[in-house]
Amino acid sequence: MEYRVDIVKMRELVEAIFKGSGLRKEDAWRVTDNLLFADMRGIHSHGLSKVATYVRWIKEGKIKISPEIKIINENACCTTFDADYAAGSVAGVYAMDYTIKKAKNQGLAMAVVKNGTHFGAAAYYALRAVKENMIGIALTNSVKLMAPFGGYDRELGTNPICVAVPGRKAVVYDGATSIAAYNKIMLANIEKKAIPENWALDNKGHCTTNPEEVVVHGGAVCPFGTYKGYGLATMVQILTGILSGGSLIVCDGELQENSDATAYNFMAIDISKFTDLEIFKKTVDIFGDRLKNSSKRDGVDEIYLPGEIEDLKYKESEEKGIELHANVISSIKDIAKSLGVSITADLYKE
Amino acid sequence: MEYRVDIVKMRELVEAIFKGSGLRKEDAWRVTDNLLFADMRGIHSHGLSKVATYVRWIKEGKIKISPEIKIINENACCTTFDADYAAGSVAGVYAMDYTIKKAKNQGLAMAVVKNGTHFGAAAYYALRAVKENMIGIALTNSVKLMAPFGGYDRELGTNPICVAVPGRKAVVYDGATSIAAYNKIMLANIEKKAIPENWALDNKGHCTTNPEEVVVHGGAVCPFGTYKGYGLATMVQILTGILSGGSLIVCDGELQENSDATAYNFMAIDISKFTDLEIFKKTVDIFGDRLKNSSKRDGVDEIYLPGEIEDLKYKESEEKGIELHANVISSIKDIAKSLGVSITADLYKE
Repeated sequence: MEYRVDIVKMRELVEAIFKGSGLRKEDAWRVTDNLLFADMRGIHSHGLSKVATYVRWIKEGKIKISPEIKIINENACCTTFDADYAAGSVAGVYAMDYTIKKAKNQGLAMAVVKNGTHFGAAAYYALRAVKENMIGIALTNSVKLMAPFGGYDRELGTNPICVAVPGRKAVVYDGATSIAAYNKIMLANIEKKAIPENWALDNKGHCTTNPEEVVVHGGAVCPFGTYKGYGLATMVQILTGILSGGSLIVCDGELQENSDATAYNFMAIDISKFTDLEIFKKTVDIFGDRLKNSSKRDGVDEIYLPGEIEDLKYKESEEKGIELHANVISSIKDIAKSLGVSITADLYKE
Repeated sequence: MEYRVDIVKMRELVEAIFKGSGLRKEDAWRVTDNLLFADMRGIHSHGLSKVATYVRWIKEGKIKISPEIKIINENACCTTFDADYAAGSVAGVYAMDYTIKKAKNQGLAMAVVKNGTHFGAAAYYALRAVKENMIGIALTNSVKLMAPFGGYDRELGTNPICVAVPGRKAVVYDGATSIAAYNKIMLANIEKKAIPENWALDNKGHCTTNPEEVVVHGGAVCPFGTYKGYGLATMVQILTGILSGGSLIVCDGELQENSDATAYNFMAIDISKFTDLEIFKKTVDIFGDRLKNSSKRDGVDEIYLPGEIEDLKYKESEEKGIELHANVISSIKDIAKSLGVSITADLYKE
C-alpha cells in the first residue's frame, strides 16, 4: 500500500531521527536530503527505506558520527580521499564539490574516495556538476551480490554508473550493472512472488525464479547484458575500490582487513573547455528531441530520455508529496519512537 | 571457410594497398596495424574485412589522404581536435598519445575529436595508455543503426565503450552498446541464417529473426540490456559527437551539414597520481583471480576476465598466423590487383 507523504514534515522527522542517532546537524540534513531525493525520483530502493539500515549502521559504528575526511593524494586535477566511514552522502558531496571546483580551473577533475559507506543514488552527485554546466560522472562499488559471467559466486557489487549532462533539462543515465536491483528481489521474496528467469542464480548456479534462493540461500544476481554488464561492473570496481586503494587492498600479497569497503569515483568535465557551452546544450536538446520523436513500437506511448521518468516523478512528488510504502512509513515511525523523537505532525497529505 | 595467413606478408600486402590508394607511408602502416590488431584479437568485424570499405572511402574522399589534424581548443588537461577526415587510426593514435602526454603531467587528461572517420577497435587506443601504466578509456560514436528503447528508428550508433587497465595482463572491456555487432547480422544475411529474437527490429518496429529485414529493409539494431544500453549509447554520443562540437552541430537551431560525422573521446588516468601503482596492479591481479576462481556454472569450463579471450586469440595469431575468412582474403587480393599492387608471396601459412 502506497501513501503520499508531506515532504517538509517527513524531512523534519527523518532529520530528527538522524540527529537523534548522533549525526551532526548538517550531516543529518545531508543524509535526509539524499534519501528524499531518491524517493522523489521514484527510486525507492535508495530512499527512506534505507533509514532503518543507516540508523543501525550508525549504532554499530559502521557509519561514523564524527568522521575526519582526509585527502591522501592530490594535484590540480586528481584527489584521493579517505572518507573515514562518514555517512556516504556527506563524503560524497564533499568529494564531488571539491572535484567540481578543480574542474572549473582545469576543465577536468577526478576524485576517488576510499573507506566510504553507502552513498545512495549516484545521480545526486553527478547532478551537482550539471548545475555548474558540467558533465558529472559518479561511480560506486557496493556489497558483493553479483556473479561474474559464467560463474555463480558473489564477487561483484551491482556497481552503478551515472553520467549526467546539462541541456534544456538534465539528461541522466543512472543504472546498476546488474540486470535488476537487489531490492526488487528482496521485495519479491517478501511478497512471495516469482522473479523473471534471467535475473538471478541459486547457490548452485542454476537460473531461478524463486527470490528465496537468492535472498535466503545465497544465490547471486546476474549482470545486465551478460558479459557486457560483467565487464562494466569489473571496471567500476577497478575505478572505485582499487584506484582509491580502498578495496581489496593488497599488502605483501595478502588482502587487508576492511578490504571490501565502499569506494566512489567522481568526475567533472567543464564543457566550455572543449566546445561552446550554448551550442552543446542546444545540440543535446536537438539530439534528445530526435530520440523522443523516433517512431514508437506497438504499445509504446512515449520514448523517454535517460532520467526523464525520474525527473517527471520528482516534479510529481514536489506537487503531491512523496509516494511511500506503508512499511517504510511505519518503520520510520518505529525508529522515531525508539529514539524518543516525537512525531508531532500528521505525515500524510490530506 | 577460414584460413591461417602469415602476418608479416599480409601486413606488407595491406600496407601496399593503402599506399597504392594514396595514403602517406606512415598512415598506411598505421591503418594496417590497426586492422591487423583487431583480426589478431579475433574481432574480425573490425579487421581486414574493412579494407575494401576503407579503400572505397579513400577513393570517394571520405577519408582524406592529406588531412591536417588541428587543435581547436586546449588547456593543460583538455584537447579538442578537428581530425579533418583523417583515417580513423591516424587521428585516433595522434589524439590518444597527446592525451597520455598530458596525463603524465596532470594525472588526468581527455581529448575529444571531431570530423573523424571509422577508427576500428577502441581497445587499440585504450591499450596505449596501459603501456604507460595508465587507465585508458576510448569511446566513439558510429553510423546510426540502433533504435532508442521503445522506438524503432535508427537514431544511435552502436557506440562502443572501452576501458583498459594495467595488471599482470591488461584487463580490457571493449563492447558496443548494441546487443550484437551489426556485422554479425550482415553475415547472417549473407548466409541466410536466422538471428536471435532480441537482436533487431524490422522497419515497423517488430522483433525479427530475419536479418534481411535489418540489412536490406532498414530495420534497427537493439541496445543491449534494453534501456541501459540505450542510456549508455546516448551518453557516448554526447561525450563524443556533441562534446567535440562535431556531430549534430546546431547553428541557429538548424542542423549543419556533415552533422553526423564520427567523433571520439579518449581519456588517460595516471594511476600513480591516485594511489601506489604497484599495489594497484597487484590488487587488479588478486581481484581478477577472485573472479576467475568463482564457482563455474554447469557447462562453463573457464571464467574469463574482460579482454582475456581476445588476448589469448592474439597470442594464438602471433604463433599460428591470423585466421581469416576466404572472402576477406579474396577481396584483399582483388583490391590489390585493381590497384596494380603485386602479390609476390604466398599468404597462407603452410
